[in-house]
Amino acid sequence: MTGRLYGIGVGPGDPELMTLKAVRVLAAVPVVAYPAANDGPSLARSIAAAHIPAGRTEIAIRVPMRAGEPPESVYDAAADAIAAHLEADRDVAVLCEGDPLFYGSFAYLHDRLSAFPATIVPGVTSLSACAAAAARALARREEMLAVLPATLPDAALEARLAEGGAAAIMKVGRHLPRIAALLVRMGLAGDALYVAQASRPEEAVLPLAAALEEGRSGYFATILVGGGGA
Amino acid sequence: MTGRLYGIGVGPGDPELMTLKAVRVLAAVPVVAYPAANDGPSLARSIAAAHIPAGRTEIAIRVPMRAGEPPESVYDAAADAIAAHLEADRDVAVLCEGDPLFYGSFAYLHDRLSAFPATIVPGVTSLSACAAAAARALARREEMLAVLPATLPDAALEARLAEGGAAAIMKVGRHLPRIAALLVRMGLAGDALYVAQASRPEEAVLPLAAALEEGRSGYFATILVGGGGA
Repeated sequence: MTGRLYGIGVGPGDPELMTLKAVRVLAAVPVVAYPAANDGPSLARSIAAAHIPAGRTEIAIRVPMRAGEPPESVYDAAADAIAAHLEADRDVAVLCEGDPLFYGSFAYLHDRLSAFPATIVPGVTSLSACAAAAARALARREEMLAVLPATLPDAALEARLAEGGAAAIMKVGRHLPRIAALLVRMGLAGDALYVAQASRPEEAVLPLAAALEEGRSGYFATILVGGGGA
Repeated sequence: MTGRLYGIGVGPGDPELMTLKAVRVLAAVPVVAYPAANDGPSLARSIAAAHIPAGRTEIAIRVPMRAGEPPESVYDAAADAIAAHLEADRDVAVLCEGDPLFYGSFAYLHDRLSAFPATIVPGVTSLSACAAAAARALARREEMLAVLPATLPDAALEARLAEGGAAAIMKVGRHLPRIAALLVRMGLAGDALYVAQASRPEEAVLPLAAALEEGRSGYFATILVGGGGA
């Protein structure tokens, strides 16, 4: 007998956007793990805080917040710590911002823990929260939707955007001036929206030009292109 | 004073994948609207049924289930019926499968009701439910994700798939043989998964080749390509 691994999507930030299933699982599991900034708090834990009973064993997965991806050793160590609980027949819930399998780091833990039974509880993505904040469709009918990390080089972004359809450019941060210049050059900037911190108290929706003028640079920002319909 | 329009994502099918916010709003609004097959039940209503108190005013938006899109007159009539309640200061919740602004018909109602205050409650998409069912990431790190309606012609699908990255081909239905042939031709069929009815009791995850062999043709089916990591 081993425990079960749960990947729990806690949604985009508003604690009310957690699912009933996420809340039920959190009430039952004895061990809760979550990514956390090196010396700071965990956003995922803060979203779920009201549903984590006192006295649970907690595992903070300390992720360096420097540019670039965390070293593999971070996931190795976290997987080892989680595996020890699973082997002792204790279920472990890993909290994930948004949805566990839409970008994010849960996949790297899951790769390493594939020997254990697992249940993924999908969550509301930041993308859906951005669309809700902007009150604009991500995509309609037979429209294609391209989800593009802003860290991609211009050539890759341009090739994909040139195919047409709607697009969402995620994790904009310091890439805003470069992405904005690209969208202007391609004639796609006119109706583009900048959405920051969707569903959180700091939520902001601005025309792209206004976000650029204000010098915005938030990591949790997305640019929505198209989706406005015919 | 007018009422407020709520677009409520009820998630992909499992009623436990509704959000706390959706449940709270449904407990409070006096009028609930939802799409429904012409002579049949409403999937969105069935997902939310446990949270709709008795005695609410209900508006079934009868959507012809023939191939192609419903006529504009369906949305015109539904918007008129909803507007009458909003003008009488009654809040109206429109139930939406998955997320209100990720494909789906809510955007067409919202276009017509833009004079009224609105709140969108994002929901878990069928895409996130497919990834959870398959236990495979939709996309990782700097990977692009293309969301592609299966109704698109081969040339459009091929151009987008040729750009690389992960892809999710939605609403597969009767297009399965054509899409499978395209993926085989492009060398992308090997790790492609067919996911039907994700999060519902009839959920099924099959290698693409097996789904083709079984002659599957469900409308609520998605093909996941890539996302498996490096």
